[in-house]
Amino acid sequence: MSILTGKALVAQGGGPTAVINQSVVGVVLEARKYPQIQRIYGAIGGVHGILEENLVDLTQETEGNLELVAATPSSGLCSTRDKPDAEYCKKLFKVMQAHDIRFFFYCGGNDSSDTVRIVNEEAKKAGYEMRCVHVPKTIDNDLMVNDHCPGFGSAARFVASAIAGANLDNRALPGVYIAVIMGRHAGFLTASSALAKVYPDDGPHLIYLPERAFDPDKFIADVNACYAKYGRCVIAVSEGIQDKNGTAIITKLSKTVEKDAHGNVQLSGTGALGDLLANLIKEKTPIKRVRADTYGYLQRSFLGCVSSTDQKEAREVGQKAVQFAVLHGKDGSVTIHRVGDYAVDYRLSALTDIAALTKHMPDEFINKEGNGVTKAFIDYCRPLIGGDLPPVARFRAPAVEKILGK
Amino acid sequence: MSILTGKALVAQGGGPTAVINQSVVGVVLEARKYPQIQRIYGAIGGVHGILEENLVDLTQETEGNLELVAATPSSGLCSTRDKPDAEYCKKLFKVMQAHDIRFFFYCGGNDSSDTVRIVNEEAKKAGYEMRCVHVPKTIDNDLMVNDHCPGFGSAARFVASAIAGANLDNRALPGVYIAVIMGRHAGFLTASSALAKVYPDDGPHLIYLPERAFDPDKFIADVNACYAKYGRCVIAVSEGIQDKNGTAIITKLSKTVEKDAHGNVQLSGTGALGDLLANLIKEKTPIKRVRADTYGYLQRSFLGCVSSTDQKEAREVGQKAVQFAVLHGKDGSVTIHRVGDYAVDYRLSALTDIAALTKHMPDEFINKEGNGVTKAFIDYCRPLIGGDLPPVARFRAPAVEKILGK
Repeated sequence: MSILTGKALVAQGGGPTAVINQSVVGVVLEARKYPQIQRIYGAIGGVHGILEENLVDLTQETEGNLELVAATPSSGLCSTRDKPDAEYCKKLFKVMQAHDIRFFFYCGGNDSSDTVRIVNEEAKKAGYEMRCVHVPKTIDNDLMVNDHCPGFGSAARFVASAIAGANLDNRALPGVYIAVIMGRHAGFLTASSALAKVYPDDGPHLIYLPERAFDPDKFIADVNACYAKYGRCVIAVSEGIQDKNGTAIITKLSKTVEKDAHGNVQLSGTGALGDLLANLIKEKTPIKRVRADTYGYLQRSFLGCVSSTDQKEAREVGQKAVQFAVLHGKDGSVTIHRVGDYAVDYRLSALTDIAALTKHMPDEFINKEGNGVTKAFIDYCRPLIGGDLPPVARFRAPAVEKILGK
Repeated sequence: MSILTGKALVAQGGGPTAVINQSVVGVVLEARKYPQIQRIYGAIGGVHGILEENLVDLTQETEGNLELVAATPSSGLCSTRDKPDAEYCKKLFKVMQAHDIRFFFYCGGNDSSDTVRIVNEEAKKAGYEMRCVHVPKTIDNDLMVNDHCPGFGSAARFVASAIAGANLDNRALPGVYIAVIMGRHAGFLTASSALAKVYPDDGPHLIYLPERAFDPDKFIADVNACYAKYGRCVIAVSEGIQDKNGTAIITKLSKTVEKDAHGNVQLSGTGALGDLLANLIKEKTPIKRVRADTYGYLQRSFLGCVSSTDQKEAREVGQKAVQFAVLHGKDGSVTIHRVGDYAVDYRLSALTDIAALTKHMPDEFINKEGNGVTKAFIDYCRPLIGGDLPPVARFRAPAVEKILGK
């Protein structure tokens, strides 16, 4: 039996996360254990870096520095939004061949797993032996097969911490507060705002997800009912909310929208949706104080907000990717499976089961009214954020009897 | 000599901070030491709560719960945006008289200190003996006399952590990133973004403050120059930037603006300024990827981002307020003075030196070009954020020689 020998290449694609460097470092440190991997290269800027032959030799990194980078948010090797087609992948494959790359590890979401799938097919067509493994990552938590995705837990911790604070702020100065949260097609991250609740009257009081058609009239009725009950209202809304025909609400309410390189409407990096919803409430209700925050890039990059569970798992998917490639000689996508409360196992799934597909919030996680989440979701999400949030407490002092009266 | 004996009343006014509950708890725990303070009441909702006789008896709090609330962000006694005039203060004074309040402690910014000043004068006019002490708080860091204000250090830590992460994100996926930061008249909080820099090419590359006239043409020239140099650009901009005539840029660029209860233009709780600046760059430069985040309420309320220095000082200004009132029989505003590197002392200043006045960034903290800060500002700000930010590291792997060429 001949042992596949050559270099390994690792790269990062798509949006950064708080823990994607853990995965790269997991790949690098695990790969160092196998003599058949002669060098470990990193591509600067994802597949675009491979195309440009923009490679670095990660073999020449100290373990100390690798550990520091692992704990640093965002994509240390830099990323790309390029979505390679077959032609592009052929060029990638040529570069890999030239450098005798025999192990390719790509950390990213469903677009990146599709790239791995195409490169893998090109290699097979050319009769070039090369292991290709997709290492999962996405704050949207929308990869098929996986119980959850590395990057999500830390982003969920950020969102829950942000909403917990915003709820306290809204309690101190009442009004309507809208938080616009990332997630174009999947509502997991918006739903994670529910972990902020401590007291029964805490926000988020209303949660709107892309999985349920958004009806502006129903929205206004919900806000009025909440405001009547609590004298305030904290709302978590996904940037990707759509009407019943699947049209993004931002395009319905706004006159000018921008489209990105893939023809998608720009949702992040703009406060437009929050402002539009705030204006809707101001127009249709007598409520005066209405504020909107769009959490934007902080959700995936804020320095110092990370889930310890997420960190550990992001490291392990990188390590497992190398083991599946080297010890089992397999191609595929590393997937996370929940096998206990709370424990996970890692498996290798077919790239075609992950690539370019999107997982949505299952029905049992969404309440009947379509404006909140269920206990099942809370139970699902809580272990992922890496321990309890800091405690939130209220004064419990009894009221003083009025003297002047009313 | 007769000892002033009666009840104490503590309240919180204006915008919440991460540490304002520390100040209330400082007042409560210190007041418990003096038998002449028979009860310690809290007003629910600041001066508005006093007006409504909406009081609670903080004497009946356990120390354990007080410590938990102290560590919780936002105003635990709830706040108000009411800006009392003489008539309003007369009513406040009537309530205090009815409840035999002899010690009044109000935590807030310059509006709140003005309230303390008026109440103090009303009491004097009525010949009612009452000590009135203002306990400083504001994330804007704009109270006169003070070296810095409780609340600022934690907000600065949030902003620096956010920009550090956003800079890493922008490095991974290059483009222009704009962060809109709180501060209507004072640029301290926006300036604190500079603490995020580790490597010489790190952002924020450009910082715009309300203390310098904002010129859109100069702004575009700055962005172009930065982009040419680094291939990317991270910008921190104060929500309160103004043109050379003092007109808020948001009103110049936007057609519809909202005014708050005080007739001020609404700057927070909307993404409008960030979107306007992003559109300006898209119009006037060839740069395609331009994103804006408005940090909004997270800056003052995010759960789990707090400066240990700020926590300690916020507690101490509350304690000192009680000592000045009880042990010295004085009215005034507790002020923080830097007496070492790094050490502070607390003094009691005249309310008229603080009330309704605004401190600005001194010239030596702003660079000559008006688009950044100086080393003097960094030295001033660094001790306030309560220890280093989490480490930020980069891969140091050397480049691999190209085989296919270029």
